[in-house]
Amino acid sequence: MSEKLSEKEQGRQRTEIVTLGEFGLIEHLTRDFEPSHASTLRGVGDDAAVIGSPEGEVQLVSTDLLLEGVDFDLTYFPPKHLGYKAVTVGVSDILAMNGRPSQVMVSLGVSSKIPVEMLVEVYEGIRLACRELGVDLVGGDTKASVTGLVINVTAVGHAPRERVVYRDGARLNDLICITGNLGAAYMGLQLLQREKRALTGAPQSLRPEFEGYEYLLQRYLRPAARLDVVDMLAGEQIVPTSMIDLSDGLASDLLQNCKASRCGARIYLDRIPIARQTSAFAEEIHADPVVAALNGGEDHELLFTVPLEMRDTVARLGGIDIIGHITSPETGAFLVTPDGTEVQLQAQGFTA
Amino acid sequence: MSEKLSEKEQGRQRTEIVTLGEFGLIEHLTRDFEPSHASTLRGVGDDAAVIGSPEGEVQLVSTDLLLEGVDFDLTYFPPKHLGYKAVTVGVSDILAMNGRPSQVMVSLGVSSKIPVEMLVEVYEGIRLACRELGVDLVGGDTKASVTGLVINVTAVGHAPRERVVYRDGARLNDLICITGNLGAAYMGLQLLQREKRALTGAPQSLRPEFEGYEYLLQRYLRPAARLDVVDMLAGEQIVPTSMIDLSDGLASDLLQNCKASRCGARIYLDRIPIARQTSAFAEEIHADPVVAALNGGEDHELLFTVPLEMRDTVARLGGIDIIGHITSPETGAFLVTPDGTEVQLQAQGFTA
Repeated sequence: MSEKLSEKEQGRQRTEIVTLGEFGLIEHLTRDFEPSHASTLRGVGDDAAVIGSPEGEVQLVSTDLLLEGVDFDLTYFPPKHLGYKAVTVGVSDILAMNGRPSQVMVSLGVSSKIPVEMLVEVYEGIRLACRELGVDLVGGDTKASVTGLVINVTAVGHAPRERVVYRDGARLNDLICITGNLGAAYMGLQLLQREKRALTGAPQSLRPEFEGYEYLLQRYLRPAARLDVVDMLAGEQIVPTSMIDLSDGLASDLLQNCKASRCGARIYLDRIPIARQTSAFAEEIHADPVVAALNGGEDHELLFTVPLEMRDTVARLGGIDIIGHITSPETGAFLVTPDGTEVQLQAQGFTA
Repeated sequence: MSEKLSEKEQGRQRTEIVTLGEFGLIEHLTRDFEPSHASTLRGVGDDAAVIGSPEGEVQLVSTDLLLEGVDFDLTYFPPKHLGYKAVTVGVSDILAMNGRPSQVMVSLGVSSKIPVEMLVEVYEGIRLACRELGVDLVGGDTKASVTGLVINVTAVGHAPRERVVYRDGARLNDLICITGNLGAAYMGLQLLQREKRALTGAPQSLRPEFEGYEYLLQRYLRPAARLDVVDMLAGEQIVPTSMIDLSDGLASDLLQNCKASRCGARIYLDRIPIARQTSAFAEEIHADPVVAALNGGEDHELLFTVPLEMRDTVARLGGIDIIGHITSPETGAFLVTPDGTEVQLQAQGFTA
């Protein structure tokens, strides 16, 4: 390296991260990396990396970083749920490649203020998720942190090479399908934050009020990884043309898929699946549940596309909604309201 | 989960992490995890997980978390070196299994105070290390952090199943071998910390004084991953009986190996390889270079064991020192000084 150690930043250009946004930043940083290994079937830019072994079965590897104060707030996130959710988040990336998860590694950065009992609870949640999803915990790193709790999950999975689904395979007229319902996790977070504010400084005997909204809490604190969807697709011999984990919100994730597939999209507002509790709580706090579905994120449902001729097959499946279709790239990506108005979809990346 | 969300920690037992130490903590947390997949050949407890594919080639996966303020100090760690070192640290775990690294994934948690230019430099270092080590960057996660810079590296590698080397294969009378030299990285860190203290509040025109100690800085800031050693072992058709990455210091890492292999060890003080600059700087700051070698860590050299009858073969190899031998478990693990005194080896885990 030619750079002197004593060289300081002073006088250099300084670009704020917000000017690029999350996706722009990743693209900017990783643009010059060209894979050199034949086994690297897919690198940066999808839910997981695809690493090929000769006989047709490929390995899928993904990594996710969860940071206290950004991804979770320990004042209302029970440690057990946190461990559970960390595994879910990691495994969801493997599912989004149409793969089966098999192993996870969990690394923790822990400050001395965290007692061992709390970490034991985190691991109870990890154990529960591992058991439910049939994955093995195979390692990790545990070390001191001078700041908050840091969790990194690496998930490993596998799939027959011909069944791996990327983000870039959506084609004109493909149907856009969604599993489960959207916006519930975001509303769960809103509920927790509201109760945190209400109880700040209140006597300890006061308890937060979650009655009637237990589903929202569950969706935020203990989301399910949709292994059942991968099973169902396999059972019906459906290989989607593209798929993505809904972690950043429908708008942002659909745009990622469209960008990778070089296509446009039309989705219909009245077809977006929203749970009853999501609508009820949105009404209570004077919010729009569709905005929660579009921009809320953390639903960890799957968005996938299938060819138009599979409409009947997909419609027969339970728990899948067809919310729109793929269009040509020059038409852009829009949400169509019931009166026919088209609203352009906007990505909501991070704005650190 | 039966646990109520509103349940608070109050009244529960509270055990400080320091009472268990790093290794005790990991053991305590992961003791109930039993692998269920046939492909999980090795889980928690070695440098990397070993994931088997049917035809004899196995995948190796490891993950490492690097935290600002614990693992690096940005006031003296050039961002490019940091990116380089992150890859080295990850890849070293694959090498310690006698595997060949092929892919890495790097996740970053970045606060808004970090300019894009700094991240570009981190990625320049990542690129350089990837090129030198012949690995592909295949993904990662980039997100906002409200605290310091967080880096997680997941490394993927592979090896023929019969060539994978674990920590638990050391046998009675095996020779204990060390690549390179020890303690230099720790002394590099001491030097950087001394100059940081000296320059705190000093005029900007003042520059730190590193003359004559460039090697120590390089070993701390830009350590080499010993891919050459894995090549050399393959070339000589040597498969060590056990191997470990020297990241925590010779004492701690040898004890890990002894514990996994259920054996004792004797290492000889006068055979521990120490570089000239390490001794010189130790003398300058009135420190013992052997203590740096035993407890300093971050050397990222390899410790391995081979059967006694390979003494001549190993002695012929360049850059390998035989520093002792494996003994029966009940004799413990000791450092033998030139006058024959035996000093018990102590693990230096973290004390968060």
